[in-house]
Amino acid sequence: MKHTDIKEIISSDKYIGQQVTVCGWVRTSRNSKSVAFIELNDGTSLKNIQIVVEKGEGEYKEPRVGMSLKATGNIVEGRNHTKEINALPSHITILGDCPTDYPLQKKGHTLEFMRSIPHLRSRSNTFNAVWRVRSVLAAALHEYFQKNNYVYINTPLITGSDCEGAGEMFQVTTVGYNAEYKSEEEYCTNDFFGRKAGLSVSGQLEGEMAATAMGKIYTFGPSFRAENSNTPKHLAEFWHIEPEVAFAELDDVIEIAEDMLKYVIRRLLDTCPDEINFFDAHFEKGLKARLEELISHDFGRVTYTEAIKLLQESGENFVYPVEWGCDLQTEHERYISEKVFKKAVFVTDYPKEIKSFYMKQNPDGKTVAAVDLLVPGVGEIIGGSEREADYDKLIAAMNERNMNLDLYSDYLDLRKYGSVPHGGFGLGFERLIMYTTGMANIRDVILFPRTVGSIR
Amino acid sequence: MKHTDIKEIISSDKYIGQQVTVCGWVRTSRNSKSVAFIELNDGTSLKNIQIVVEKGEGEYKEPRVGMSLKATGNIVEGRNHTKEINALPSHITILGDCPTDYPLQKKGHTLEFMRSIPHLRSRSNTFNAVWRVRSVLAAALHEYFQKNNYVYINTPLITGSDCEGAGEMFQVTTVGYNAEYKSEEEYCTNDFFGRKAGLSVSGQLEGEMAATAMGKIYTFGPSFRAENSNTPKHLAEFWHIEPEVAFAELDDVIEIAEDMLKYVIRRLLDTCPDEINFFDAHFEKGLKARLEELISHDFGRVTYTEAIKLLQESGENFVYPVEWGCDLQTEHERYISEKVFKKAVFVTDYPKEIKSFYMKQNPDGKTVAAVDLLVPGVGEIIGGSEREADYDKLIAAMNERNMNLDLYSDYLDLRKYGSVPHGGFGLGFERLIMYTTGMANIRDVILFPRTVGSIR
Repeated sequence: MKHTDIKEIISSDKYIGQQVTVCGWVRTSRNSKSVAFIELNDGTSLKNIQIVVEKGEGEYKEPRVGMSLKATGNIVEGRNHTKEINALPSHITILGDCPTDYPLQKKGHTLEFMRSIPHLRSRSNTFNAVWRVRSVLAAALHEYFQKNNYVYINTPLITGSDCEGAGEMFQVTTVGYNAEYKSEEEYCTNDFFGRKAGLSVSGQLEGEMAATAMGKIYTFGPSFRAENSNTPKHLAEFWHIEPEVAFAELDDVIEIAEDMLKYVIRRLLDTCPDEINFFDAHFEKGLKARLEELISHDFGRVTYTEAIKLLQESGENFVYPVEWGCDLQTEHERYISEKVFKKAVFVTDYPKEIKSFYMKQNPDGKTVAAVDLLVPGVGEIIGGSEREADYDKLIAAMNERNMNLDLYSDYLDLRKYGSVPHGGFGLGFERLIMYTTGMANIRDVILFPRTVGSIR
Repeated sequence: MKHTDIKEIISSDKYIGQQVTVCGWVRTSRNSKSVAFIELNDGTSLKNIQIVVEKGEGEYKEPRVGMSLKATGNIVEGRNHTKEINALPSHITILGDCPTDYPLQKKGHTLEFMRSIPHLRSRSNTFNAVWRVRSVLAAALHEYFQKNNYVYINTPLITGSDCEGAGEMFQVTTVGYNAEYKSEEEYCTNDFFGRKAGLSVSGQLEGEMAATAMGKIYTFGPSFRAENSNTPKHLAEFWHIEPEVAFAELDDVIEIAEDMLKYVIRRLLDTCPDEINFFDAHFEKGLKARLEELISHDFGRVTYTEAIKLLQESGENFVYPVEWGCDLQTEHERYISEKVFKKAVFVTDYPKEIKSFYMKQNPDGKTVAAVDLLVPGVGEIIGGSEREADYDKLIAAMNERNMNLDLYSDYLDLRKYGSVPHGGFGLGFERLIMYTTGMANIRDVILFPRTVGSIR
């Protein structure tokens, strides 16, 4: 069906005076004696195009909200440099009817109601804008890494590692609901892979294998958590960006994280001004200024030890008590970024007890070269580290945690054969979208959210 | 660690005469009385850079293959406009040792051996080249869709649909190996989602929901098949590109598929000449010419009915007999594209019995508006269709297949509320990489292949 994207018509003057055909869904419709108006949206733009129907010729039947139609007419300039289409009734063809029980009749539905119609909510302005932001941010991330010589890799989703009693991991099976097998061993040997398998919570370990060959890599794919967390910030299935870089120390990791984040937000502001203004107007006043502020300043930097001191001296009444060795809670993270630094801030060098086995051990014997990026309004958005590149130190950290070294022989090989300083970080894609749109519930930034008890 | 990517040095003259620091792994090393040579690779390029060590000053210990090191020196132009680094022994720092049991000592390992060391094989030229092609093709696909106003969407991987007795689907569970629950019902209600869940085999149905809101969308994510197919062409976990377009009929789908494929292959030829030459030399003679041929001609087009006639009149001795109504086998597909058309060819309008319920029913009552793209050397690489947009016809096709309509109410709503002609196709990413590299086994074009019985 030859037609022109409404986005193209709206964003260019070259169509003025031209005859074009557009297709779309009716958002609103008004009818008067001699002229009728249809607001048409085809999904390519947050904005509708207005069809001005000159009713002189032919019969005109006013289309209902939600109907799909095709219209051919001339583009003219409307008020405020908008574009309109002048079309005759005979040049408007209804493609699909829409009965009056269409759930999106009126504007102003709650987000909660919209979650009950995930297959239709994308037809609203809000979700049109969220999905476009999501798409543009994804493209900007690819662009950033590609132009900096990173190789995009796909780490496996079905994994055999970390499946030993990991309560937060989904199991993957072809015999799981089959009562035929009585023991766990019998299950496993009869299963598709001949052993236990689960859905990966992170591609980092495989990312390290690729980075210590390709130099710089990034993943962009789904990760899974079978966590029983029914909160506005947790998904059982989320998208994850995990760059990993060889010949890099903690400072390099920090530099990359800041550079990447600024790049993609700058790109978003340039590419989606309508969407950002929409969110600023309807979801978070001051969003645009907040994002512009973020990218125009150097991010702050503080060690965990300094941060603990700042929190202890703050006089604030935190729900969770603060002492050296504790995990930072969201209230602490927000205090640091919102009250102390008033901007994005990297917190580094956490106690080794609260961080993962693979993080580089600092000379002090107490901390590891970890980094979290805290941003105002959200808290932690990125977590990363330099990795322990020393074979013996890594083994020691794993033994301290009673890990089964046999399951990690591939990973340990990276420290045996040409080990290099390397590091990386993880960015939860949905957290980034929440942060850049002001959407407060993670269920509203992914098409079909998966959460505990919910899989529609 | 401040250093310059070897790729940057190799591809630009601006470093000549400059002092730079490079990091990488030793590929080979030669030592003579006054001078030594190290071929260093940092993964950013298929090519190594040669370090020429002037042994006059300081002590020089020849590095072993696989060791990682850092070297600082001046860039000079070598033979054939190559770049070399002149470095003093004191400016070479070993980062990581590499014992002599390093598996990649010599060149010329078999691909089969390499599959036994998936965590190290990326350090070879072959896999360095495959992963870069993979990355560049992925970026080109994003680029193509983004510049044509498509919205990148992420469809859910864990799905509740199609889980009724689908033998080819992996089950996802948090209680699957738990012998506590005795009946299937008890399992399900106690499971994470409170019901059966599985890993998606395709994002198409959700893609349609997004396309009938956003106009043009594409997915790029993993799909899963629990098929017991231990062949060089099947993976249990593969990456899938599925564009879906509203206001599109079969001809539009075909046009998009051709345009997209030509775009990404053109991009690959421009971006990865070294890699393509490498594959041409070592894996498939004539690869480059074949790809250039592909993008310089209009793809052919034939209906299924015509194709059957061509096959029947061919005089060929096919293993699988040919008659109207049969599925085309790879031998048939290759005959059509290699012998009849001698180029890529779209086969359209297949018998409805051998295609899916959602495909648009043609007026003849026998065929559906399906399309497969066949390419020389491989066979089918893309499969798509216009979708049935008529509510009653779709219901009829589902009833013919005894499908449970209740499970598809969301999908049916798309035909109820503003239905539009729409269509799309699926491209298996690994098939595209095989086709563009000449790699013959799908296990060699994905980092960590998942196949029946194998999950390392």
